[in-house]
Amino acid sequence: MDKKTLENGEAVADGSICGYDSLHQLLSANLKPELYQEVSRLLLGSNCGRPLEQIVLPDSARALSSKHDFDLQSASFSADKEQMRNPRVVRVGLIQNSIALPTTAPFPDQKRGIFDKLKPIIDAAGVAGVNILCLQEAWTMPFAFCTREKRWCEFAEPVDGESIKFLQELAQKYNMVIVSPILERDIDHGEVLWNTAVIIGNHGNIIGKHRKNHIPRVGDFNESTYYMEGNTGHPVFETVFGKIAVNICYGRHHPLNWLAFGLNGAEIVFNPSATVGELSEPMWPIEARNAAIANSYFVGSINRVGTEVFPNAFTSGDGKPQHNDFGHFYGSSHFSAPDASCTPSLSRYKDGLLISDMDLNLCRQYKDKWGFRMTARYEVYADLFTSYIKPDFKPQVVSDPMLHKNSS
Amino acid sequence: MDKKTLENGEAVADGSICGYDSLHQLLSANLKPELYQEVSRLLLGSNCGRPLEQIVLPDSARALSSKHDFDLQSASFSADKEQMRNPRVVRVGLIQNSIALPTTAPFPDQKRGIFDKLKPIIDAAGVAGVNILCLQEAWTMPFAFCTREKRWCEFAEPVDGESIKFLQELAQKYNMVIVSPILERDIDHGEVLWNTAVIIGNHGNIIGKHRKNHIPRVGDFNESTYYMEGNTGHPVFETVFGKIAVNICYGRHHPLNWLAFGLNGAEIVFNPSATVGELSEPMWPIEARNAAIANSYFVGSINRVGTEVFPNAFTSGDGKPQHNDFGHFYGSSHFSAPDASCTPSLSRYKDGLLISDMDLNLCRQYKDKWGFRMTARYEVYADLFTSYIKPDFKPQVVSDPMLHKNSS
Repeated sequence: MDKKTLENGEAVADGSICGYDSLHQLLSANLKPELYQEVSRLLLGSNCGRPLEQIVLPDSARALSSKHDFDLQSASFSADKEQMRNPRVVRVGLIQNSIALPTTAPFPDQKRGIFDKLKPIIDAAGVAGVNILCLQEAWTMPFAFCTREKRWCEFAEPVDGESIKFLQELAQKYNMVIVSPILERDIDHGEVLWNTAVIIGNHGNIIGKHRKNHIPRVGDFNESTYYMEGNTGHPVFETVFGKIAVNICYGRHHPLNWLAFGLNGAEIVFNPSATVGELSEPMWPIEARNAAIANSYFVGSINRVGTEVFPNAFTSGDGKPQHNDFGHFYGSSHFSAPDASCTPSLSRYKDGLLISDMDLNLCRQYKDKWGFRMTARYEVYADLFTSYIKPDFKPQVVSDPMLHKNSS
Repeated sequence: MDKKTLENGEAVADGSICGYDSLHQLLSANLKPELYQEVSRLLLGSNCGRPLEQIVLPDSARALSSKHDFDLQSASFSADKEQMRNPRVVRVGLIQNSIALPTTAPFPDQKRGIFDKLKPIIDAAGVAGVNILCLQEAWTMPFAFCTREKRWCEFAEPVDGESIKFLQELAQKYNMVIVSPILERDIDHGEVLWNTAVIIGNHGNIIGKHRKNHIPRVGDFNESTYYMEGNTGHPVFETVFGKIAVNICYGRHHPLNWLAFGLNGAEIVFNPSATVGELSEPMWPIEARNAAIANSYFVGSINRVGTEVFPNAFTSGDGKPQHNDFGHFYGSSHFSAPDASCTPSLSRYKDGLLISDMDLNLCRQYKDKWGFRMTARYEVYADLFTSYIKPDFKPQVVSDPMLHKNSS
């Protein structure tokens, strides 16, 4: 966590200059309690009129966190009591992690190293009674897409491949739904690659998959070198614990992508991501919370941690010298709720497990309260989009008549 | 700004317990400079790699601010220099204010009182060289819609009515576009009321109008008592200073509404609002910034200030006793930019004028950088919405086959 310098001499904007672990840790450590409380109300919102409370987790989970040095945090979202339905409390987990071995290590060792590193974190989720767990984007590998080297395609595997089998055992053992975002190799369609989330049921069965809908073409994140826009629509997976969906990484910048999962009935949408500080950090707490508010569902946001250094230098289309990494993945995984509350984030630096209880009744309560679905006028937008996608679309512009007098 | 108590004994959550004026004032006053700098980076983002700078405003504007006791703040958004276009810097202003007289005063006096109160603030904008100015929602009146009393309809006026004439003179005097959100009386359509923003050109001409698209039905904000969903689409107004649009109040909760103004080419979208702390304050900084990011345009957010007490008590559909106000309008007006940066907010309590220089070239630069428009796959959503609006729409749900085994 020391301040460090890239090869090109730039200081890394990783916050270590202030020696803090996360925004909320910094604020709570440096503000008087009554001020922190008010700042928290403004920044994190409140849930049923109260700040979020932590969950009492079993000692066995805490012991794993200490032994394997990962961040373990928790928070509980409640909902109002209803008369016609019982509460539907589910326990949901997010895991963020760095890679285990240098990117120069043999690929099988790198992959196995990540399995070994994740095992105790998943065990902690299991012993803590997590019902639904989501891992980070392309969790089996370094996020090597910045290199544009095709050899990293070796990490791709089919939906029933090695990493899924590893998780299926744990899903069954802990009666836990696991969302596993991988680089998918579609053998049945000529070895096409996809960025895919596989949904593993709590019996270890594969419920289905979703392929990333929106592919970035920005800076080091031109992932279209490796895979194309997904062809699975916006599926919502009905599990025994609730209806879930996955908005993979760059899809979080697209309000329409979030909305479509909502229209299909999602109660929890995961956003497994890989993103770095200079590019996106000020957006990170905004987009997920906005989606939770606008769509009356919970969002679980995950970002990997650490700086991944690659063997061959690459350029980034920004005129700067070639370099071997593309910045600090700032972690900061967190949950957002339909009532605009959100949890403090996990560390910007450490592996971590964030566990949250959430009463899914809150989703419908907020649909009823705010009526966003009811007041949305989708027919207006169906017409607009149908018109917009035509090449001869003309935007609705009202020009000031004086404008042309001015310019003549 | 003392802590106060409503008639029903509840403490008002107006932040006065901590004696602060705005979140950022609180943070800057209580954190060491280097910590505040890092917190600002995370909370406010940065613009072209730097914190936002203030503008040097003329003494005459500062003198008006002192004499008439309104908050005057400024910030400047820059953009990268381009080779094919010159910078397009416009100076944009937002005004937030409380009402001038008690709601028991004669209506013409109340309205005139607001005119008199706004005049020096608009003058300050004028002498500061503001090019485009936006006032708050229904600025000519108390936000009386909570009462459900029809007598407040008297404040409605046609698009060429008294308040617009008042502003047309100032627009012409200062060569300034003014956005005037009023309660509109549509005489040509049988005295129908609308919640409307009138766009006054810099020559004092009326360029056009937009009527609020989404009408809330929540708590004290069931405004459908007074007006219905707008019928003006999503117009973008091409002024000599740039392309602007208006997303009125509750429309900010609808990402589709923001998006439609973007598809029609808006570079600045104003969000004149009236909203209170308990209901929406944690959402306030989220939704506008998300819109600015997702649509690559600037957003100007305005909320009125103060607590408005009405002569007749009313209930709020929350089981609580009748009362005469519906909470504290928390001001906190601010600008958001396409690069995820935003200005600190105006006061939560005082009238205020926020002035911002913005190089509109930043909009296209961020469209080019992030490519959200290009990667949005609108055809997918055109299909989805066309299907969704049909009564027999079936959501895309993949059920765990084990689910039905469990429940049998």
